[in-house]
Amino acid sequence: MAAYDELIKQCKEIATLASTASILHWDQQTYMPPQGAAFRAEQLGAISNLVHQRFTDPKIGDLISEAEQSDVVKDPESPEAANIRELRHAYDKATKLPTELVEEITKTTSLAQQDWVKARANSDFKLFLPWLEKVVKLSKEKADAYGYEGEPYNALLDDYEPGATVDEIVDVFEKLRNELVTLLQKIKDAPKKPDVSIVEREYDVELQRIFGESVAAAMGFDFTSGRLDVTTHPFCTGIGPGDTRILTRYNPNRLNDALFGIMHEAGHGLYEMGIDKKKYFGTPMGESVSLGIHESQSRMWENQVGRSKPFWKYFLPQAKRLFRKSLEGVELDDFYGAINNVTPSYIRVEADEATYNLHILLRFELERALLTGDLKPADVPGEWNDRFQKYFGIEVDKDANGCLQDVHWSSGLIGYFPTYTLGNLYSAQFFNKAKEDMPDLDEQFERGELLNLREWLRVNIHQHGQRYRANDLCKKVTGKPLDYKPLVAYMNAKFGEIYGF
Amino acid sequence: MAAYDELIKQCKEIATLASTASILHWDQQTYMPPQGAAFRAEQLGAISNLVHQRFTDPKIGDLISEAEQSDVVKDPESPEAANIRELRHAYDKATKLPTELVEEITKTTSLAQQDWVKARANSDFKLFLPWLEKVVKLSKEKADAYGYEGEPYNALLDDYEPGATVDEIVDVFEKLRNELVTLLQKIKDAPKKPDVSIVEREYDVELQRIFGESVAAAMGFDFTSGRLDVTTHPFCTGIGPGDTRILTRYNPNRLNDALFGIMHEAGHGLYEMGIDKKKYFGTPMGESVSLGIHESQSRMWENQVGRSKPFWKYFLPQAKRLFRKSLEGVELDDFYGAINNVTPSYIRVEADEATYNLHILLRFELERALLTGDLKPADVPGEWNDRFQKYFGIEVDKDANGCLQDVHWSSGLIGYFPTYTLGNLYSAQFFNKAKEDMPDLDEQFERGELLNLREWLRVNIHQHGQRYRANDLCKKVTGKPLDYKPLVAYMNAKFGEIYGF
Repeated sequence: MAAYDELIKQCKEIATLASTASILHWDQQTYMPPQGAAFRAEQLGAISNLVHQRFTDPKIGDLISEAEQSDVVKDPESPEAANIRELRHAYDKATKLPTELVEEITKTTSLAQQDWVKARANSDFKLFLPWLEKVVKLSKEKADAYGYEGEPYNALLDDYEPGATVDEIVDVFEKLRNELVTLLQKIKDAPKKPDVSIVEREYDVELQRIFGESVAAAMGFDFTSGRLDVTTHPFCTGIGPGDTRILTRYNPNRLNDALFGIMHEAGHGLYEMGIDKKKYFGTPMGESVSLGIHESQSRMWENQVGRSKPFWKYFLPQAKRLFRKSLEGVELDDFYGAINNVTPSYIRVEADEATYNLHILLRFELERALLTGDLKPADVPGEWNDRFQKYFGIEVDKDANGCLQDVHWSSGLIGYFPTYTLGNLYSAQFFNKAKEDMPDLDEQFERGELLNLREWLRVNIHQHGQRYRANDLCKKVTGKPLDYKPLVAYMNAKFGEIYGF
Repeated sequence: MAAYDELIKQCKEIATLASTASILHWDQQTYMPPQGAAFRAEQLGAISNLVHQRFTDPKIGDLISEAEQSDVVKDPESPEAANIRELRHAYDKATKLPTELVEEITKTTSLAQQDWVKARANSDFKLFLPWLEKVVKLSKEKADAYGYEGEPYNALLDDYEPGATVDEIVDVFEKLRNELVTLLQKIKDAPKKPDVSIVEREYDVELQRIFGESVAAAMGFDFTSGRLDVTTHPFCTGIGPGDTRILTRYNPNRLNDALFGIMHEAGHGLYEMGIDKKKYFGTPMGESVSLGIHESQSRMWENQVGRSKPFWKYFLPQAKRLFRKSLEGVELDDFYGAINNVTPSYIRVEADEATYNLHILLRFELERALLTGDLKPADVPGEWNDRFQKYFGIEVDKDANGCLQDVHWSSGLIGYFPTYTLGNLYSAQFFNKAKEDMPDLDEQFERGELLNLREWLRVNIHQHGQRYRANDLCKKVTGKPLDYKPLVAYMNAKFGEIYGF
């Protein structure tokens, strides 16, 4: 127990230092004056080095080993056992990467990103190709250093979705893809089309903020322990106990972007707020399970709640009070159609709910093939465009709208993409279970009551921190492992109604 | 040279880590959600411990010793020699305080501040007395631990004004006090009185921000490497190279507060921006000389520039464009009188230019006597009120308006107050010299040209970092040591004109 206590004390100290980087990063994306950028990079580097040094200190390894041999891990579902399990996992990963490899990756991705910006601007894949080759090579070396069972991709995926494997998800993903391609075809052939112009009128930015904050507050986002700011690339950051921040961007001629963006980030925020950080901050029990589970929370609030008809039955009249001109005379069904409009398009971050996962699945397939060696980096544009044609039914006009669009590969984030689709899958599974437990959930939404769902999520998911791995949590909560059917059923029902098929 | 280089490398690393505390503090005073306060204290504590540990490591002492015996200190005015001189000074001070004393002071002042808040609210000196006794006792112990020549107050003053001593300032302060008491009497007896109501009309807060930022920009405050925000207790913080932030508060019914507050903080900001941090950040050459010199920069811009007639000859028409109603038909002379109105009052932070230093001198006299033991903490209210009557000619109605008004003593900041008056003295001396070097300075101000003064300050003061101690810098720049005459002459001329004596 002494070793465990000492270990936890050390981890809390390290996490407190690490949390200063969250503020530095938040400030960098919000208020930092532009000329502060170079020094900010130094500050972030100093904290990151310090935290890495402290956490990879052999003393931490010794304390983990000692705790592993003690009674504290007796009950594998106890907070103590979960903490030790995940600390062991994190410590082994952190100590397995040779310093030279880490430095090589940092240097390469820093330069790669600069050329990627140019390559995307000029749609010049050749400029980016040598960097993609290096990143793939270094990613393989990283996977080798970590070690893995099955294929190398597993080692990378584990960085973002601990414990997940290709074997576990590939079958689900493939079935989902086939269903989505069919759904998209039905939507294209549909007799009804929503009128999107409703949400593309003038929407005053300050009123958007007021409306967005009032929706976030209705969701249970606590503005005494959180805040909303403006940034270029929206995100959510949990700084520590009592401090969770969400960020969005506003488009004065589109209601959707900030509104669903705020609901999305507030969904992440509720997860951060729902973890018992007062008790567990600095330990795995005080952290989210995985990027996939985190995304399940944001997507549930954004889509299952925010793009549902019951929700707007209550909130459309509210919105009309603020956006009097633009929403004058707009009917619920028409508004509901407008916010759920489906249009296949090139850019992932602008994709609608029905096509979003196709963007992800395409990337996952290419990444996996790059890692096994079945796909050469030079062949990425051709393969991308072929698959895009197959899944979306449209031709990619230029690589800037294809394989050059995302920052991830130039940043070395191979293995990250699948967590978006995992999030969507889990969100549908969790939401079905929540409806089963609260059969009147739709009626609650119609009255503007969102707090019972928030509490259900807190009890079933948030409060557990990393007690369970993602798929175990899914089984624990829903009784079933990862599955594509709930998401597909939800989409077919929703888009069937809107598009009339 | 190797020892010197290694020392500088270490110091830069430590300073980079320390600078994260500046962001944490800035965020705490601006955007942090209220429930983040407890964790913020932990973050600040962690950084502060880490920085103290790293800087007091015996290896740092060894490197300083080695560098002291090397050729790098040959030329005592070289950047290297200045760095070693000041690092030695800081290292010795940091290592001289026993950990138990530091912890005792931290604990005592934390509790003292809580009771001080209550004591001030209820004007209950008895509640505060035991804390004042403890703080004085601990301050003496601190002085003893540091060691000192002359009286113990010297050791404390040195924390804020390195190298300054009571002997050096007490005579100047006493003469200044006598002159100010005479000046105040003349003002009271004066035939003319300004009409302050001009600046106490409606001043839209957003327009105040726009006007304040445009004045700061005209001063040379660079908004690409700085910003202005709102807070409760205004301050300026230099985060690091390319990042200097100022803060103010707005009163919608008073123009003066934010306007001169912004000029004051922008004056501090120009100093931070004028130091060559790209080259010297993390070393004494990359830091300001002392609190007194820092205050000389803020007060010069606030008073000698901002409360001057030439300045307003240009800026009053600008202000009238923004505050059309409130400044309609206002004449330059009347406006000039209104912003320079003198009214003796109880509260230091609300004091005008003529009485401000009397507030400080009173505190300095009491602090010094508390440290020598000539004054007992229990006798502070009586002594305060007697002197207040003598200097200001008014009776203190309650201790909340007297000896309980400032946070400093409960925070353990004994020795800090004199730096305010040192700043005012230095500002008058520097400004006289600037006028000597640029005889057309008034005409420049009348054309809205403030950048030559800024450049003069950068060249003569800012760029030197800690190359010279405060009084040496004063001699270097003006040819004379600290003196009360320039400030008194400036005030007599200015208030003589306004009040007609």
